[in-house]
Formats: sequence, C-alpha cells, structure tokens
Amino acid sequence: MTNDLFLRACKREDVERTPVWMMRQAGRYLPEYRAIREKTDFLTLCKTPELAAEVSIQPVDIVGVDACIIFSDILVVPEAMGMELIVEEGKGGPRFPAPLRSRADIDRLTMPDPNRELRFVMDALRLTRKQLNGRVPLIGFSGSPWTLATYMVEGRGSRNFRYIKELIYTNPKDAHALLDKLARAVASYLSAQIEAGAQAVQIFDTWGGILPQEEFREFSLRYIQQVLQLLKKNNAPVIVFCKDCGHSLEAIADTGTDVVGLDWTTDIGKAREMVGSYVALQGNLDPTLLYAPPEKIRAGVKRILEKFGKGSGHIFNLGHGILPDIPVEHAKALIQAVKEESGKYHKG
Amino acid sequence: MTNDLFLRACKREDVERTPVWMMRQAGRYLPEYRAIREKTDFLTLCKTPELAAEVSIQPVDIVGVDACIIFSDILVVPEAMGMELIVEEGKGGPRFPAPLRSRADIDRLTMPDPNRELRFVMDALRLTRKQLNGRVPLIGFSGSPWTLATYMVEGRGSRNFRYIKELIYTNPKDAHALLDKLARAVASYLSAQIEAGAQAVQIFDTWGGILPQEEFREFSLRYIQQVLQLLKKNNAPVIVFCKDCGHSLEAIADTGTDVVGLDWTTDIGKAREMVGSYVALQGNLDPTLLYAPPEKIRAGVKRILEKFGKGSGHIFNLGHGILPDIPVEHAKALIQAVKEESGKYHKG
Repeated sequence: MTNDLFLRACKREDVERTPVWMMRQAGRYLPEYRAIREKTDFLTLCKTPELAAEVSIQPVDIVGVDACIIFSDILVVPEAMGMELIVEEGKGGPRFPAPLRSRADIDRLTMPDPNRELRFVMDALRLTRKQLNGRVPLIGFSGSPWTLATYMVEGRGSRNFRYIKELIYTNPKDAHALLDKLARAVASYLSAQIEAGAQAVQIFDTWGGILPQEEFREFSLRYIQQVLQLLKKNNAPVIVFCKDCGHSLEAIADTGTDVVGLDWTTDIGKAREMVGSYVALQGNLDPTLLYAPPEKIRAGVKRILEKFGKGSGHIFNLGHGILPDIPVEHAKALIQAVKEESGKYHKG
Repeated sequence: MTNDLFLRACKREDVERTPVWMMRQAGRYLPEYRAIREKTDFLTLCKTPELAAEVSIQPVDIVGVDACIIFSDILVVPEAMGMELIVEEGKGGPRFPAPLRSRADIDRLTMPDPNRELRFVMDALRLTRKQLNGRVPLIGFSGSPWTLATYMVEGRGSRNFRYIKELIYTNPKDAHALLDKLARAVASYLSAQIEAGAQAVQIFDTWGGILPQEEFREFSLRYIQQVLQLLKKNNAPVIVFCKDCGHSLEAIADTGTDVVGLDWTTDIGKAREMVGSYVALQGNLDPTLLYAPPEKIRAGVKRILEKFGKGSGHIFNLGHGILPDIPVEHAKALIQAVKEESGKYHKG
C-alpha cells in the first residue's frame, strides 16, 4: 500500500505525519459529486457499484485525503430488513413511511444476508478497493444499532425523538429486542464489508447523545459492544463515533474499539489523557470552521494538533460530516494544513 | 412567603423537601394555556401583562410547582433593540426577517431602556408578583448574550448555525462587539426584572453547546459572566442554564452564578461532586420521560434524587422545557413524585 498512515495511526503505530480524512467526504460540496447526482438519485447511486466507487474515490483524487470511505447510507440496513425507505430530494431527508410502532413491527424485521440484500455495498467495496489500487485504505461503515433504531421508530428526522424515547421508557423489553436484532444485523453487515475489502470500519452513533448517561450505556453502548464482540475483524481496526457523548469517553473506549471518534465539543487533549493510552482518537475540527478562510482553518488545525500533542494515535477528521455548502478550496486547505503542520508531532 | 423552598434551595439553605418547577411550565401542554392562545397570538400574550400573569400562574394552580416563572420570550430583547420579530403559528418558529449580517447591522442596534421598550415585561412581573401573593417565588429570565446573538444572526432556527459560526471564526471582533452590547442589554433587563419583583432570574444559554470548548468560553461564558458582574442582584439568586455544556461545569459554576442548571445528559451526582460545594444544581429529568406512564416518571424522579443525595442545594426540574404534547396528568405526576419522594433526603 502506498499510503497506510491511516491504518498505522488506528493501531497507534509510528507515522511520519498525522493522517486525515473527512466524514461525508464523498458528498455535495464536490462539484464532481453533484454532477453525478444530477443524473442519478441518491439510492440509485448507493446501489450502483460503479457510481458508488467513483464518488467514493473522488475526494482521494480531488482533495487528497488519506483514506477512502465507501459511499453509502446507514439506512440501507433497515431497508434490507424489510422496511420501505424513501429518499426524495429536498423533502426533509430520508424517511420510512411505515415506522416501527409495535412489537409485531419489530418481530417482522428479517435478518438480512449482507451478501444478498446488501450485495451492492459489497460489490462497491470490491470495486473501490480494486480501483484504489493500494493508494489509500478503504473504510466501510454502519449506523450503530441505537441510531438505526431511532430512525426506524421515528420514521424520519425528529426534534424530540418522542417515539423512540417512549419505547425505551415505557417498553424497554421491546426496545432491547429491536436493538439485539440490529446488533446482530450490523455485526454481520460489517463482517461482510471487511470480507469484501474494507480495511477498517466505522460505527456511527449519531443519536447516542439524546440519551441520559445510563440510557446511553443501556440502549446504545451495550449494543455497539455486542457488534464488536460478534464482528469478524480480520485485523481491520474499528472506529466508534458517538456524537454528543463526550460524557462517556471511557465507556466508549472500553467497548473494545480501536479508535474513538470525537465530535468538536470534546477537548482532544483531555480525551487523550483519559483514554489515549489504549485507543487512538479521531477528530475533531468544528465542521463549520470550514466556512472561514484558509488561514483560519490552518489555525484551527494547528490548535487541534497541538492539543493532541506528540506521538501517534491521532487520525485528523472533522467533528461531524463536511457540510454541503463548504467551498472545495476550504476542504483542500484543511487537508493541506494537516499534511504540512503535523510532521513535527511525529518522529522524523 | 408561604413557600420559599425554591429560594432556600438556590442558596443551599436547609429545606424540608426538594423544590420543583419545570422550564416552559407555562405552555401548550396546559389546556388552560391553549384556551387563551386560541384567542391571542403569542406576542400579544407576551405583551399583555394581565394575560401573561394569568398563564404564568396557571402551573402554580394546576400542577403545583414551587416557583412561578414569568411568561415571556427571550426574543423580545432583540426586538426592543430594533429588530423586527415575526412569530407566525406553525411556520417554523419565530424569525427575524432582517438578520444581522454586517457590522453596520450590529452598530444600528439600540440599547433598550427595559422600563420603556420592555415595560410590558416589568408590568407582567409586578402584576404576577401581586397576584401570587407570596404563594411561591417569582422567576424572571433572559436569553444569554450568545444565544440571543445566535438567533439575531441566523434569523431563524438553524441546523448548522452557518452565519453565527462564520461570524465568530471569520470576524471575531464584530462578534465581540455584538456580544458586549447584548451583555449590557441583558444585565440591564434582568436588573429591571429584579427591581420589578423577580425574586430570582435564570439565564438560558440554549446554544452554548454548538461551540467547541474554547469558543464556548470566549463567546458565551465570558458574556454570561459580564452580565453577572453588571447585574443589580438585590439578593436575588441567579441560575445559569447552558444546554449541552456538561463539558464545562466548573467554568459555568465559576461565573459567580448561584445555581447551575443541568440538561438531562449530565450526571447530577458527578456534577454535585464537582461543583456542589459552591453552587446549587437545578435539573435534570429527561423531558421525554414525561411521555411514559406515572410509575416510570416516579422511578426517574427517584433516580435523580438518589444521585444528588442528601442535603440542600437541589432544585428539581426537567433537563429542558416541557414538551407541548405531554399529558397534564404526567406533569402532575412528576411534581407529586418530587414532593413525596424528596423529604427523606432532607433533615426533619
């Protein structure tokens, strides 16, 4: 492999400089992505391996990131379990017209065979891995069981998360049945991704942060841990990213993950003090700092590098996905700044 | 005063049981509130002291809370500074059709005389205080400078807070000019509220949590501190509630506030260990737990009381405002549970 900085940093091995990639790096801020989306709707793009591979590799070519994450969506898993998924442009995001609202709904979900119902993801991974040709490592991903459950029960983006909260507080047994099913589905999905060529996998827990700390452990972290226990890792590092969960860093690190992803509200210096001796850290620039001009972006990069300090175990990233209206030049400025400024924190 | 539990708890003095009130307790979940709103639009209600007093007192009569918070809206302050404010039913919340987008916009803001431009709030406080007749203490409030600035710059509810983030990252000097102006306006507004009869005041920092920790200190906490320094307290305790800022509890407590409000993602037991020796704590039940049946609500109440433990310095509250579709019976169950379960944590 030409550039394995990312994989080495995941394992806290020595690197020459800090590797960098961006969550949602294959996305709308790239004109080349928008050009493809003009001709192809979102789900078709997810399900056409040639196109998914093309947009996955775009940020490697255009902005120079050190890792390639497969283009897909976390909601293809519930769809593969039997839920109708609708993604319409500019209509408030994806939605499930028939959300889970009873035990019967939960029991009706099928356990997908990732190499059948989600074969398009595996094909996209194989093709992307081949086309990358060892330039940078390939990352697969899934939503966490809790985050998937949240979408499946709410049916769409939510403000107060009424239905999933009502489920866990009123009927925790049904919630656990759903989450256990999802943990097994996610583990099998990620294992298949690794088998198909993903060299690392990230678990996105976008909605862990809506829970009190005990419930975060009971309904989210416990099932992430179950995924990790069931996962056939085959030496691929795992990244767990729980948004708005800075209160539980140690518990997240204790799941057995290799890397803990940090959102921008956590102090990466303090996080390293707490858990940096046994996990790598990924993050954590405020994604909205990319609205600012390149010199401000560079200052932000330097601050985070300085906070993490010397040594390996840091993968630079944003604290959440790159926003669709960020100028490409600003994304490039971020990548460039990490590459230029991080060398001095590593052994020559 | 018949019931001064709330004021005593704010000062960490002995109480017989833990006092309880709810953020947004004068609101849509109450049929009696909805009856008034059917005949009166939101801003007219804010600006008609007789009606504002009536809805402020409703939760004291109906659900039995231990404190009365004046019915108003944080956005009347920017309106008093010269910004047009529009509140239309079911159209995505209040908005400023001409948000602040330049230094000239910021410089054009006037410094309101609270007894003139915001006189309706002072009149509502005087009337409410009179009508309460000492039954429970009266709380005034304001948005924090940062939270007001966020609304004033974004113009409406926002997902990514693009404009306010761009302002602080690209043009911090202008941001500081705005925040300084707001801190002075908020201090004068809260001082006038205390003068008009508020026996405590709460500062709501709804959007402090969108910032990285350094920026939270620089752009939010610093100006809350400025408000506290300028405030004519006249012995009224101050509550500072910063949502999603559990990472900075000590810094919040160090502003000089009497009480720190906690959202539901912070552990109140750990918070007490950290700052409970010099501030009281308010909170912090997950507001969505009120969707669950009364016995689950009671279990949640008991858990929080147990976490805080014995002794004074706790004001029970939700971790955020009560939601509009909560059944009144569930709100009553919460208040009842706190009253019945908290006695054993106090002397005698």
